[in-house]
Amino acid sequence: MKAKKEKTTASKDKKLNKSKLNKNKKTINKSIKKSIKVVEKKAKKVSSNKVLKVRFLGGVGEIGKNMTALEYGKDIIIIDAGVTFPEGNMPGVDLVIPDTTFLEQNKAKIKGIVITHGHEDHIGGLPYLLKEINAPVFGTKLTLTLIENKIKEHKLNEVNLNCIKPNTIIKLGVFTIEFINVNHSIAGAVALSIKTPVGVVFHSGDFKIDYTPVNGETMNLSRIAEIGEEGVLLLMADSTNIEIEGSTMSEKVVKDTLDHLFSENYKRRLIIATFASNVHRLQQILDLAVKYKRKVAFSGRSMVNISEASAKIGELDIPKGLIIDIEKIKNYKNEEIVIVSTGTQGEPMSALTRMASGEFNKVVVGENDTVVISASVIPGNEKMIYNVINNLYKLGAEVVYESLEPIHVSGHACKNELRILHSLVKPKFFIPVHGEYRHLKKHVKLAESLGNIHSLIAEIGDTVELTSNTMKFGEKFQAGSRFVDGIGIDGLDSSILKDRIHLSEDGLIVVVVALDKRSKQLSSIEVVGKGLVVNEEFINELKLNVENYLRYIDLRTVCNEEDLNNIIKRSIKNNIFKATKKHPMILPIVLEV
Amino acid sequence: MKAKKEKTTASKDKKLNKSKLNKNKKTINKSIKKSIKVVEKKAKKVSSNKVLKVRFLGGVGEIGKNMTALEYGKDIIIIDAGVTFPEGNMPGVDLVIPDTTFLEQNKAKIKGIVITHGHEDHIGGLPYLLKEINAPVFGTKLTLTLIENKIKEHKLNEVNLNCIKPNTIIKLGVFTIEFINVNHSIAGAVALSIKTPVGVVFHSGDFKIDYTPVNGETMNLSRIAEIGEEGVLLLMADSTNIEIEGSTMSEKVVKDTLDHLFSENYKRRLIIATFASNVHRLQQILDLAVKYKRKVAFSGRSMVNISEASAKIGELDIPKGLIIDIEKIKNYKNEEIVIVSTGTQGEPMSALTRMASGEFNKVVVGENDTVVISASVIPGNEKMIYNVINNLYKLGAEVVYESLEPIHVSGHACKNELRILHSLVKPKFFIPVHGEYRHLKKHVKLAESLGNIHSLIAEIGDTVELTSNTMKFGEKFQAGSRFVDGIGIDGLDSSILKDRIHLSEDGLIVVVVALDKRSKQLSSIEVVGKGLVVNEEFINELKLNVENYLRYIDLRTVCNEEDLNNIIKRSIKNNIFKATKKHPMILPIVLEV
Repeated sequence: MKAKKEKTTASKDKKLNKSKLNKNKKTINKSIKKSIKVVEKKAKKVSSNKVLKVRFLGGVGEIGKNMTALEYGKDIIIIDAGVTFPEGNMPGVDLVIPDTTFLEQNKAKIKGIVITHGHEDHIGGLPYLLKEINAPVFGTKLTLTLIENKIKEHKLNEVNLNCIKPNTIIKLGVFTIEFINVNHSIAGAVALSIKTPVGVVFHSGDFKIDYTPVNGETMNLSRIAEIGEEGVLLLMADSTNIEIEGSTMSEKVVKDTLDHLFSENYKRRLIIATFASNVHRLQQILDLAVKYKRKVAFSGRSMVNISEASAKIGELDIPKGLIIDIEKIKNYKNEEIVIVSTGTQGEPMSALTRMASGEFNKVVVGENDTVVISASVIPGNEKMIYNVINNLYKLGAEVVYESLEPIHVSGHACKNELRILHSLVKPKFFIPVHGEYRHLKKHVKLAESLGNIHSLIAEIGDTVELTSNTMKFGEKFQAGSRFVDGIGIDGLDSSILKDRIHLSEDGLIVVVVALDKRSKQLSSIEVVGKGLVVNEEFINELKLNVENYLRYIDLRTVCNEEDLNNIIKRSIKNNIFKATKKHPMILPIVLEV
Repeated sequence: MKAKKEKTTASKDKKLNKSKLNKNKKTINKSIKKSIKVVEKKAKKVSSNKVLKVRFLGGVGEIGKNMTALEYGKDIIIIDAGVTFPEGNMPGVDLVIPDTTFLEQNKAKIKGIVITHGHEDHIGGLPYLLKEINAPVFGTKLTLTLIENKIKEHKLNEVNLNCIKPNTIIKLGVFTIEFINVNHSIAGAVALSIKTPVGVVFHSGDFKIDYTPVNGETMNLSRIAEIGEEGVLLLMADSTNIEIEGSTMSEKVVKDTLDHLFSENYKRRLIIATFASNVHRLQQILDLAVKYKRKVAFSGRSMVNISEASAKIGELDIPKGLIIDIEKIKNYKNEEIVIVSTGTQGEPMSALTRMASGEFNKVVVGENDTVVISASVIPGNEKMIYNVINNLYKLGAEVVYESLEPIHVSGHACKNELRILHSLVKPKFFIPVHGEYRHLKKHVKLAESLGNIHSLIAEIGDTVELTSNTMKFGEKFQAGSRFVDGIGIDGLDSSILKDRIHLSEDGLIVVVVALDKRSKQLSSIEVVGKGLVVNEEFINELKLNVENYLRYIDLRTVCNEEDLNNIIKRSIKNNIFKATKKHPMILPIVLEV
């Protein structure tokens, strides 16, 4: 049951209070305005009896694999192409990406892919999409750098990447897209203001409002205010932190904590784990290393790659001589070194996890180390990261993590920041995104508490149809999850996952029955158990069970393989349960010899 | 590496400041004192050249399966016998219990099992222990009631259960044990003051200090102060909340929130999920139901059983006519009902989870329901419980949970309460318990910040030896985890778990090779895949691989099964990886026909 699944029509346009924000207007680039007007004229030519279709491919009802498409007539644009990580009920799965069948079937319409920022849940699905669809990709500098890394890994050729800056405007089919600077836990994050023939769609991307960002600028609230004044049809906004009152702390808080840790640990080696893509955090660590006269060694493949790439594009300022190779740390004293490492989530193969378990011979952790984990725990990773922390303590190190010190701040807006966004954008319609159902529901409540707004909660596979004064659900389309599992993508369906879970919980009994080709007489039986407690005696008993059972059946009358398999299963099922209190998978294999 | 693994000797006894707490002394039962003196006299007779051995069977380096044994000469007592729940790397495992081989080998010495309270991590392993060891069990009323439930489930006969009250003293071999009332999230929780021939061992059990408990009394700080004054050799104390500053909130806070929720939702049905064993919480809900003129329906097997049993022993006061059967709720209006349910952790088969997924036809959740989850999320259960919350929202219900309202308080002492305990007990030696390594480490730090104390951190399998003025590590003994898995306990070892994980992540390829009995010539090959993406073409290719590979080997020269199995594995391993980028388990089965 969805909130307001019925047709919702805004009967009255809101009065635009144009006077209020005039003083902000001068901040906005005049040339941008001009180009908007040109675009507006063109847009009017397009037939207006069509509707705008917003199609949700991912990122609603979940935090992960964000992907939304806007469709109008013969034009489609895609916003983000993320991945999500497999849950406990998806053993063996490497990644989960959106099912993009709909887009593949509508290839010709796709005018471009617009990326809000370079986090995995916004770009991780892109290589898979680009294998199927050839469309230009648009993003800011760091976003494209991270995408380029992926493209190389996947050995994709001829990808059309287009670097845009905040305040830029591009045109893709009937859509005119303006990129607006926002704050987030990665550099180069943007919101999107998209002119469509039925009105403006504003997509917040992932954002927070940081009034004292350590690098970069504060979110462009003035431009957003102006867009709001001009009239916004639909707002889609980040719901991640909707359950948290107040505002997200500024990155500056982390800077203060880190400075304090550098000064307090002046005799000790520092190992700081953080996300490689959080270049603002990296910059702070580098700045403090300079201040406290330490050399920096990067550890972990993604840390080395991304820091290098970020420096190359000017997002990270690395003073000459600051970085040393991780192999060289032995040439320095503890107090002359800071190691910056991956592994904030306790990922099994990461540098920090290997240091903690003593398997990383480049960095041997001991009593002279203070390890700082400058990140929050992503739900589901608690056990892994606390395991790493326990191991670090066992090695004698000091460990500083989020529950002890303000060593990390969220990248997402809390309730008050969301109120600011809604108040500035003043949309006619609202659809919350980037959240589980509970987040979306609460975001709708917040929006409705601010005024007479029409909202709905979309699910993956929903189409929402908009005209200049209506919003309603349209048809469902094929959408959902695809599993990346080794080389396979499409083959892995839920029945295979069910088998895997069955095997892992109850184990397996293979029963091989060899029949004589001509007589169909039983020739030989073999029983093998895996993943459950069995002994030879029990195996022999099961063989006897099968033999006795089959002896009373004329196997020439069993017409097909499935029937025979079921007979074999039936012959031992109850005895297995009686002996083990488990229901292992029984796998009969019949051989004619 | 352990903190102070070397021999630690307290050279000077602390001066006992006897005057300070005199005014508290009158609260203590004089008859208790008398019996203590009698016991003391007897204790002195025991040879004093022996050492006290504290053996850690569980609950250190982990939160779960608490179990400690005290051994002196020919006497052993056991403190608690808990379980822990399986982690992600233990698929199919039902429960994890301590390996009690050591106790089984020393059966004759065991004088009794003392239980601090009735939570699963303190009593869940008891039935398994009692199958091996016949010893009297001591606990308070509710603790024994919960144990009796388990004994019935396990169909154990002739268990010697002994109900004790706080302030009682019992003697088990050389040990004299006094039970002291503490506050916790279950009724009838006690700390233990154990007189041994070398000095007093004080075990906090799980505790917090609640100055305004809703039922029961405040932790008996006066008696603890007196015990401290008399001199304590060793303190073992709860470390769960050592990372949290200040003090744990009083249960009264929850009462206020619940009252507010009852009054606010006066038109709606209330569904409150909580732990069945938290009878104080249950009592509050019942009291509020009376106040707000609602009937109460219990939902979930353990909720029904435990509430009934608690009422029977007088721990839960259920006014006549308050409880109605869950089947009868349809006869009442929404505002006349409160449903009290299990399922606070999103357990798949629990009442609340089934309500949320619409599979519980006794309670159909809808827009007139407010669901209150009065518990905190146990780490690892986040995904499950948020899934339940999302589903409840989808059904239109309102949901109140911990991150939104103070609807639950912890049962464990925070830093300030631990400081109070340490200051009152003033032990010579300290061993932190009930915590992961990081907790234990921080608890040692806290203890050392309060004075010149000798601490050590024990691991499962460690023996700590104490005399009246020394504490050091003794020999290691066999200890660890046993897996309860269907009917099997001892058989399930880590190699089986490894197989299960392998099967679940990469799937399985079974290769059946039939050989002619006499000629050892290849007669037939069958290949079957499970849990991975394979098609017929691929299977046929693998068959061909095996056939081609075996053709060049004289199978008469292959002496044993293992060699043949390895040959078969080798024949397809690389091709499987090339085709799937996975390493499925290859299970060769050779049949002679």
